[in-house]
Amino acid sequence: MRKMAWTFAAATLSAGLASGAFSQQKNVTIGVSIPAATHGWTGGVVYHAQEAAKQLEKTYPGLKVIVKTSPDGASQANALDDLTAQKIDALVVLPFNSDELTNPVREVKKRGTFITVVDRGLKDSSIQDIYVAGNNPEFGRVAGKFITDTLKEGNVVVFRGIPTVIDEERVSNFEKALQGSGVKVLDKQYANWNRDDAFRVMQDYLAKHPKIDAVWASDDDMALGVMEAIRQGKREDIKFVLGGAGMKDIVKRVMDGDKMLPANVSYPPGMIATAMQVTAAQFFTNAPMRGTYVLNAELITKDNAKNFYYPNSPF
Amino acid sequence: MRKMAWTFAAATLSAGLASGAFSQQKNVTIGVSIPAATHGWTGGVVYHAQEAAKQLEKTYPGLKVIVKTSPDGASQANALDDLTAQKIDALVVLPFNSDELTNPVREVKKRGTFITVVDRGLKDSSIQDIYVAGNNPEFGRVAGKFITDTLKEGNVVVFRGIPTVIDEERVSNFEKALQGSGVKVLDKQYANWNRDDAFRVMQDYLAKHPKIDAVWASDDDMALGVMEAIRQGKREDIKFVLGGAGMKDIVKRVMDGDKMLPANVSYPPGMIATAMQVTAAQFFTNAPMRGTYVLNAELITKDNAKNFYYPNSPF
Repeated sequence: MRKMAWTFAAATLSAGLASGAFSQQKNVTIGVSIPAATHGWTGGVVYHAQEAAKQLEKTYPGLKVIVKTSPDGASQANALDDLTAQKIDALVVLPFNSDELTNPVREVKKRGTFITVVDRGLKDSSIQDIYVAGNNPEFGRVAGKFITDTLKEGNVVVFRGIPTVIDEERVSNFEKALQGSGVKVLDKQYANWNRDDAFRVMQDYLAKHPKIDAVWASDDDMALGVMEAIRQGKREDIKFVLGGAGMKDIVKRVMDGDKMLPANVSYPPGMIATAMQVTAAQFFTNAPMRGTYVLNAELITKDNAKNFYYPNSPF
Repeated sequence: MRKMAWTFAAATLSAGLASGAFSQQKNVTIGVSIPAATHGWTGGVVYHAQEAAKQLEKTYPGLKVIVKTSPDGASQANALDDLTAQKIDALVVLPFNSDELTNPVREVKKRGTFITVVDRGLKDSSIQDIYVAGNNPEFGRVAGKFITDTLKEGNVVVFRGIPTVIDEERVSNFEKALQGSGVKVLDKQYANWNRDDAFRVMQDYLAKHPKIDAVWASDDDMALGVMEAIRQGKREDIKFVLGGAGMKDIVKRVMDGDKMLPANVSYPPGMIATAMQVTAAQFFTNAPMRGTYVLNAELITKDNAKNFYYPNSPF
């Protein structure tokens, strides 16, 4: 009975639309290749991919979505072979890295498959039909603006991730946002987007700097390590810690008004769902979808945190 | 009976999705404010907006889309008041111009309305939640690459539009694509994206230059004027004319293998439909949609022209 209602609805729909490329009744298979939940953010990617797959299959009758997770780059290249064997019409891929995945994705493209790349780019951008990514320069700028707006003046310590283009874009734009303000950077060090490394770096900062007003942890895993170091060090001078990426537990504390975590900056793992939406629209609507979609890095505060809170997500 | 089938389908759908912000049953109204069909391209915008409205209302139960066209900037400002009075949740706006529309759109935003801006930006980009646009630098680069790939060497004449940032981005990237090739620009003049002006400029080119290998008309309205001047001038030296924007009649001739029109470059009026798709997804899915979506400028050839051909569109 359910199935019948959907079939009837789909028939009504196609009858209402006469234009060229559009056809609601066609069968389309989208393969989604993503890293397994090796750390928090990718755990969020897996969750959002699976949720979006369910929603999209219901929104667009005739659509089948296959989500495959892989623990490393070599496995992901194999996963692409498996997906290709299932005759996918489109591939949505968040590559482990550019080096290992560029050629395997190019091979999928050569079969005429529509390609959507997410977050980490390939070495040859001509392979992709759609590119969906976060806005790393804006991620740094929004964080810097929040800190200057909130502190007006004072001293901050900065956590860098891993030396990459992404990290450089974030940090240079953070520092640009501080220019001309009363906020100074006391110190900045790499902590590899890792909780334990951030804990150790923060212990070092606490030993070196007797007065710190705020911390730009720049990432929620690092923010957790920073908070633990502050707790163990019993430091009262630090007014707040600003992380980033919208980890569930941190967004909850922003929502609850935790003074040590007054805000966050989004870099949503849900971007995989965005990529799946625009890929499905390529097949089920007449709208042109090929292009580059850069998602905003948004300031998350008590007022809007509920829009960024996914209690069922692991991240 | 139709209505019942849809209601049943909607109920089935919401039951299947448990996650946070998502709710299929809510009622959402999207207002779409666009220029009236004052020339070819905007005629295409109106067509695609109306088609997308029908499709989206069927895809997302609970969604209502109101499309309003306006003949000039002042009327469009009034149309925004009318839409606001109808309690819209989101506004998708292709502004006549930045000067007249920036403040009116800001007023709509202040009421908490989600704002998607299309093609022509506002003077204050912080007003928009989503921005959807064509890729003007790429539009010039793709055209230049097609001409150098096809001619290898020879002389071209170039048509500019109206002196604007858009025109400058297109032409400078066209010329960059020619650098180091055997293709030279004999002449370039403004013809205001207008058929009659292009006809006159082409007559001037024909009088001045005894040997022209190809014409970058850069716009399909201008291409029609150029073709007429060539026909009246009975010139046999010109191998082809490259327009742009994907006008229906021109795409048809590309599809049919017309040697004078071997290709085109897309700047799709359907971008209004793209903007409506991503705006609807903001309300009916969990995917983060706030950001900037720049659509590719694509080379249209005999092989893929059918994907760009909308026989029912006026453009």
